[in-house]
Amino acid sequence: MRAIFIAVGSEMLDLDRVDTNSTYVARRLREKGVLMDMKVVVSDHMDNLSWIVKKACQRAQLVIISGGLGPTEDDITREAAAAALKKKLVFHEQIVADLQSLFRDRGLAMPEINTRQAFVIEGAEIIANPAGTAPGQYLETENCKLLLLPGPPNEMIPVFEDIFSRHIVPAANYFIYSRTFRLTGIGESDVDSRIADIYRKYRNPVTTILASLGVIELHFLGRSKNSDEEARRLTDELAGKVRARLGDFIFAEKEQSLAEVVVDDLKRRKLTLAVAESCSGGGLGSQITGVAGSSEVFLGGVIAYANSMKTGILGVAEEVLKKHGAVSKQAAQAMAAGVRRLCGSDIGVAITGIAGPGGATAEKPKGLVHVHLSVENFEQGVRQLFSGDRDMVRTRAVNRALGLIWQYLKEARGKGQ
Amino acid sequence: MRAIFIAVGSEMLDLDRVDTNSTYVARRLREKGVLMDMKVVVSDHMDNLSWIVKKACQRAQLVIISGGLGPTEDDITREAAAAALKKKLVFHEQIVADLQSLFRDRGLAMPEINTRQAFVIEGAEIIANPAGTAPGQYLETENCKLLLLPGPPNEMIPVFEDIFSRHIVPAANYFIYSRTFRLTGIGESDVDSRIADIYRKYRNPVTTILASLGVIELHFLGRSKNSDEEARRLTDELAGKVRARLGDFIFAEKEQSLAEVVVDDLKRRKLTLAVAESCSGGGLGSQITGVAGSSEVFLGGVIAYANSMKTGILGVAEEVLKKHGAVSKQAAQAMAAGVRRLCGSDIGVAITGIAGPGGATAEKPKGLVHVHLSVENFEQGVRQLFSGDRDMVRTRAVNRALGLIWQYLKEARGKGQ
Repeated sequence: MRAIFIAVGSEMLDLDRVDTNSTYVARRLREKGVLMDMKVVVSDHMDNLSWIVKKACQRAQLVIISGGLGPTEDDITREAAAAALKKKLVFHEQIVADLQSLFRDRGLAMPEINTRQAFVIEGAEIIANPAGTAPGQYLETENCKLLLLPGPPNEMIPVFEDIFSRHIVPAANYFIYSRTFRLTGIGESDVDSRIADIYRKYRNPVTTILASLGVIELHFLGRSKNSDEEARRLTDELAGKVRARLGDFIFAEKEQSLAEVVVDDLKRRKLTLAVAESCSGGGLGSQITGVAGSSEVFLGGVIAYANSMKTGILGVAEEVLKKHGAVSKQAAQAMAAGVRRLCGSDIGVAITGIAGPGGATAEKPKGLVHVHLSVENFEQGVRQLFSGDRDMVRTRAVNRALGLIWQYLKEARGKGQ
Repeated sequence: MRAIFIAVGSEMLDLDRVDTNSTYVARRLREKGVLMDMKVVVSDHMDNLSWIVKKACQRAQLVIISGGLGPTEDDITREAAAAALKKKLVFHEQIVADLQSLFRDRGLAMPEINTRQAFVIEGAEIIANPAGTAPGQYLETENCKLLLLPGPPNEMIPVFEDIFSRHIVPAANYFIYSRTFRLTGIGESDVDSRIADIYRKYRNPVTTILASLGVIELHFLGRSKNSDEEARRLTDELAGKVRARLGDFIFAEKEQSLAEVVVDDLKRRKLTLAVAESCSGGGLGSQITGVAGSSEVFLGGVIAYANSMKTGILGVAEEVLKKHGAVSKQAAQAMAAGVRRLCGSDIGVAITGIAGPGGATAEKPKGLVHVHLSVENFEQGVRQLFSGDRDMVRTRAVNRALGLIWQYLKEARGKGQ
């Protein structure tokens, strides 16, 4: 089975927006042996969209459209898809009733314009959208399965998953087994050179290496025409060989972020955390509190952007700043210890650095970051020189800090602490 | 003239990589009134690429392909484009000679495989690539101008610019003028219903409305066959009418984020800011410090995730938390005033809320957020009920806080403060 993904929205043609919907869907399909080998981004113009939908349905067995299901005049996916397939749109009273009750629950009246969302391609199944007002639609024609999905990722995912499990998985024709390793504390080229001699021997499973600002993902995808067991055996064999070489850097073997792993480890060990952030400006706290349930282990912290915050609130000695500067091992050390004392946490972690574009000197270049971890009777600091722009340096710094906490918790566990 | 952009490369289908080539080309074309209304990303498989090139050349007057011009077996753009147009590939000795001399200059022998790069579609012009080994190709067929460009941006740009100036600019037939409004403090459907009667009257300029978690973007694109002035006049006329209705919500008329506008306004008024964050966990500080130069006006703040941080560090009275709870107007008020005092800033802003999925009660549902701004002799609080998941509630809360600061600075300015 072959799939074409169509993302609708003029904004995606103009702006540097990453369309995460298509990569999400591509990954889910690949897990079932379905190849998405084309992706199209189209402006929200009727003739344009209906042209590509028509061509795509002639070519692929699976055509997935996301976006353009909202209530406004710009939202033309329903009409365009119906026109492409020469089908009528049918008005569904029930959708209007559901929308009215949704608005009523929020104490609002449904705007008249939302009735546009009640038109469904004839013969299509209506797919409930638990997170928004635009229901999805699913239609099987002679040649092709057609999916109409809402554009916002949080709405797209549940609607897609519903159709995926009921209509796509049962029709997939390969047994597929995939595994993922997520690594931190090692670079992409270093990963590749350590394992290239292993994975290059295999055409099945397929190995993919993805790098993203301090976190590396290794993906192994094995397939079999015969059985689930065979696909699994092939994948496990390769994954086992890779783990033997890179195990020290693997923080997760599933779709789990570094922050999630850190929060889990803190919970398991019943330790609390506080952060002191300078150049990252709250990014570390934001990552950690992005994890549901982090309040069990995360107390909070101080965004010590100005030096007056470092000295006045965290208790960093004026002398340290004068002698070593705010971006120094000594400052990071005092910030980490200071925030731990201030908040009464078990672990204190500090980040201070030069994110750029300004602030660099000959000795302290743009991208220089100090990260420090402080616990009672132990501390550890790292100095890193990160490449990339302001955003990238800040994100790498946050990931490095999370990596440092993860590593500490792992090693402490190893020592039976 | 209408354009379709085709990016070749399987890696772009799997990864969250932004294809910057297409946005570069879209912008350059728009400046000359050429609309790129479709973009395709295809895997590097022969039948796949040649299918879409054929269809694209039937539909658009300008088809731009980037990538797949390298020397390896994966590089199939030459063959696929020739097949799509039913043309032969012609071997050019001169290209081989040029490549050989390029390699010789680097002290290397040309690998045999690079001779693949010497095949040119019959009738195509060879376009020199000053930055790499893959020359570009330019071909005019009956229906369509076809561009074959190398994939790496530093090679793509000079090759594209060469063709653009000699073959596209002289054929362009529109003058274009665009304007952008960015709004906060108003929802998408509210924006639409307030101005639909105006913008729907115009097919030129074209109006686009984009919404993203509390920030709305309005885009107007006017075009004229006659003159730059006419395009500008058309766009300004519509934009002026829209501004008359929505001016109070417009924070920027260019590509500027809400955080950037807030930092600029603070600088202009020489005011300093500190933040106290509970449910957003550092996200507000992170947004603000994402702006280069924010250190002039942003002192820092406190991530008061645990209640002990709210009372112990920000000085929120135990009583307030007991009586009203941590998610209340009173708590937000005390946090904002507390962080202002603690950091010695002119403005203190606090966020406290229930991001979910846990923590909700009957009176305090998931999505409830209080944002509060405190200055000497003035304060303002807002209570909002945001929809969406944890991430969305947190992002909306941060945007609402930025909007509140922006509004305060605007109104204070209006009163001559």
